[in-house]
Amino acid sequence: MKKLSHVNKKGEARMVDVGPKPVVAREAVAEAMLVCAASTIRLLKKDALPKGDVLAVARVAGIQAAKQTAALIPLCHVLPLDAVGVEFTVKPRGVKVVCTVRTQARTGVEMEALTGATVAALALYDMCKAADKNMRVEGVRVATKKKSAC
Amino acid sequence: MKKLSHVNKKGEARMVDVGPKPVVAREAVAEAMLVCAASTIRLLKKDALPKGDVLAVARVAGIQAAKQTAALIPLCHVLPLDAVGVEFTVKPRGVKVVCTVRTQARTGVEMEALTGATVAALALYDMCKAADKNMRVEGVRVATKKKSAC
Amino acid sequence: MKKLSHVNKKGEARMVDVGPKPVVAREAVAEAMLVCAASTIRLLKKDALPKGDVLAVARVAGIQAAKQTAALIPLCHVLPLDAVGVEFTVKPRGVKVVCTVRTQARTGVEMEALTGATVAALALYDMCKAADKNMRVEGVRVATKKKSAC
Amino acid sequence: MKKLSHVNKKGEARMVDVGPKPVVAREAVAEAMLVCAASTIRLLKKDALPKGDVLAVARVAGIQAAKQTAALIPLCHVLPLDAVGVEFTVKPRGVKVVCTVRTQARTGVEMEALTGATVAALALYDMCKAADKNMRVEGVRVATKKKSAC
Amino acid sequence: MKKLSHVNKKGEARMVDVGPKPVVAREAVAEAMLVCAASTIRLLKKDALPKGDVLAVARVAGIQAAKQTAALIPLCHVLPLDAVGVEFTVKPRGVKVVCTVRTQARTGVEMEALTGATVAALALYDMCKAADKNMRVEGVRVATKKKSAC
Amino acid sequence: MKKLSHVNKKGEARMVDVGPKPVVAREAVAEAMLVCAASTIRLLKKDALPKGDVLAVARVAGIQAAKQTAALIPLCHVLPLDAVGVEFTVKPRGVKVVCTVRTQARTGVEMEALTGATVAALALYDMCKAADKNMRVEGVRVATKKKSAC
Repeated sequence: MKKLSHVNKKGEARMVDVGPKPVVAREAVAEAMLVCAASTIRLLKKDALPKGDVLAVARVAGIQAAKQTAALIPLCHVLPLDAVGVEFTVKPRGVKVVCTVRTQARTGVEMEALTGATVAALALYDMCKAADKNMRVEGVRVATKKKSAC
Repeated sequence: MKKLSHVNKKGEARMVDVGPKPVVAREAVAEAMLVCAASTIRLLKKDALPKGDVLAVARVAGIQAAKQTAALIPLCHVLPLDAVGVEFTVKPRGVKVVCTVRTQARTGVEMEALTGATVAALALYDMCKAADKNMRVEGVRVATKKKSAC
Repeated sequence: MKKLSHVNKKGEARMVDVGPKPVVAREAVAEAMLVCAASTIRLLKKDALPKGDVLAVARVAGIQAAKQTAALIPLCHVLPLDAVGVEFTVKPRGVKVVCTVRTQARTGVEMEALTGATVAALALYDMCKAADKNMRVEGVRVATKKKSAC
Repeated sequence: MKKLSHVNKKGEARMVDVGPKPVVAREAVAEAMLVCAASTIRLLKKDALPKGDVLAVARVAGIQAAKQTAALIPLCHVLPLDAVGVEFTVKPRGVKVVCTVRTQARTGVEMEALTGATVAALALYDMCKAADKNMRVEGVRVATKKKSAC
Repeated sequence: MKKLSHVNKKGEARMVDVGPKPVVAREAVAEAMLVCAASTIRLLKKDALPKGDVLAVARVAGIQAAKQTAALIPLCHVLPLDAVGVEFTVKPRGVKVVCTVRTQARTGVEMEALTGATVAALALYDMCKAADKNMRVEGVRVATKKKSAC
Repeated sequence: MKKLSHVNKKGEARMVDVGPKPVVAREAVAEAMLVCAASTIRLLKKDALPKGDVLAVARVAGIQAAKQTAALIPLCHVLPLDAVGVEFTVKPRGVKVVCTVRTQARTGVEMEALTGATVAALALYDMCKAADKNMRVEGVRVATKKKSAC
């Protein structure tokens, strides 16, 4: 039967002890979607994207947040990330964010990927909010997750 | 016509200069929904919620993240928050998170509220992920925003 | 004869170079005691402990502080912690805090355990201070420390 | 009757809303004692104190920690500190640490003073621990607290 | 006669108590120069600058560092910055960085401007270092500093 | 032909994936020079250096900054540093800062050494700025860099 690994029998939160687990190569890909008005998409395409600062700012925000995940998510371990990438795709109804994180560690990096994708989406939200009051972040989820011997 | 306030004419990102704006009392309420399986809701109700650690951990994560917003969202200002609150409602299809932030400052706190709601939802995700591989965070948005003289 | 390892011959502070040391499994347990009035203990038992938020908040504070030790204690190394646990025991004269930290690293984790125990005690202090003006933190010390091959 | 201000009726933790409180000048002085062996006191006097690095390192640790209090103690507010000072007195049975913090804010700074004194004591502990395995931090408490119109 | 304001009569470091000083509007502009090879300038102009990510990344690094100055420079005060801007000019012998910081506070922001300019230059250095092993940062200085009633 | 390793073909910034690289022992030494007036050098020698706090404060600032490099320089990896040392030499025209960093990792530590040297120089600047309005930081560069099997 399924259990919550981060809670002990008394219901107390804990960091899972990853000491006994082997170091393996791990990758997680997470995504998030900043849903915005069509006029915001046009504005982004006209003013911001050709020159790149808007997406670059959001990319840096996502990368930095992924590296800081253990300071944000209380029961996460500090992990030495080998790579963090954040990619954007401008779609008709919003901007899709994909964050890929790789490590060689005793535990996985899905929280790092989710944190990177989410903070990148929120940084985009921040830069667009003067022009669009009805944006939402939707579909924050892990797309893929894999591990292999290292 | 609408513009992106965080980008100058050359397309370069900038922090908006809030110096000329008056200090007013401001409040923003943001929400996020951690969508999970019905079995995860049962597990939360059975193992975690009666004793409170799981929601308390996520609440602290949200409060701490709201206070750290300017370190996460690159063009945000460091603001002296008067109060941050994070509330959870367990629903049939997931856990709803509502984050309320108040300040007396020259600029608003919607990014702080969004960051608090989102990080609280991600902290919940982290604690439930061993039991549910298909969770998503949905509906991250500003619910209300107001200001008044202080 | 004993020496201060963190000071060179000229009296200058330094991080000890742990490069030549082997990676071994290490554990340190530290404790601290928040001494408070009997009425505060009654208040905790009545209002806070059954529902758990107070101790959960202090637990998260201790875990997060342990992970941030190298940012607080200037000559400490950044270490990849395998596990951090914080336990509380309510005693007649106060609340005892025990923090356990494990790593596989070139140097020990007693500072991480001490930092976790102390910050958890201070977080408890913060939540109780409106009701009790005479609390103290006492007995901050390393209880046990061990290492083994990994 | 006394209550825990940081817990609501449902037992949930919260940051106290300081918005309605006036801005006043505030000062808090906290102290801590690093209790150590007489031989450690001799070692400090001989090797470390004449040249000053050891106490200076601990002083910086305390000042920096006081400024970071809201990141360590979950329900504390980020406050603009006007001054932080950390003083040491070498006594026969240990080193006494006194941390003084001043602000002009809507809430007091005892947690900042306690955090500064404690982290300074722990930083001293770190630098002396190779020579003394039985140190303790004792007597962490608020010595004085005052406020006045500003 | 001139004195070091950050050291007391006993030679101990201290944060200057800014409590008695009035809140005034302040601005500081600092600059730094990343000196690099002509081939690196060509590479930047060809590969990086048209699309903007390189300078945007360095700009974000400088803005974020300026906001974090009090965590980096031990005796600095945490200040509420109204605006931080980072501008780059590509010159024949390198890239000039200018950082402008504004606040309404009891003390000035030259350290914030210097920190912003320097970290932006180091971030540029990081992105160019695979192509140029002989870069230097030169001329880190305060260009202008002013204050006015607010 | 030379390329910018931190930018992909589309001009987007990225963290270089260090996963495939071997773990080797690495050392980098960086330097910076705080250029100041002769009267400032006299002041330092008379008031600050005999008692040591000024240089100790700057040393701690440099060590702490080196450990925080990945939070400051966006595309840097979080590395487990084995040692960080900061040395000062008082020269006729200023104070020379040398920062040495060692690790066993998949990528080098020149950014850590540069960050440590620079922040130490800026911390010195901060402590001397009341007495000298024309200081500059010059000559920030990597002095040596080496690696060896570990």
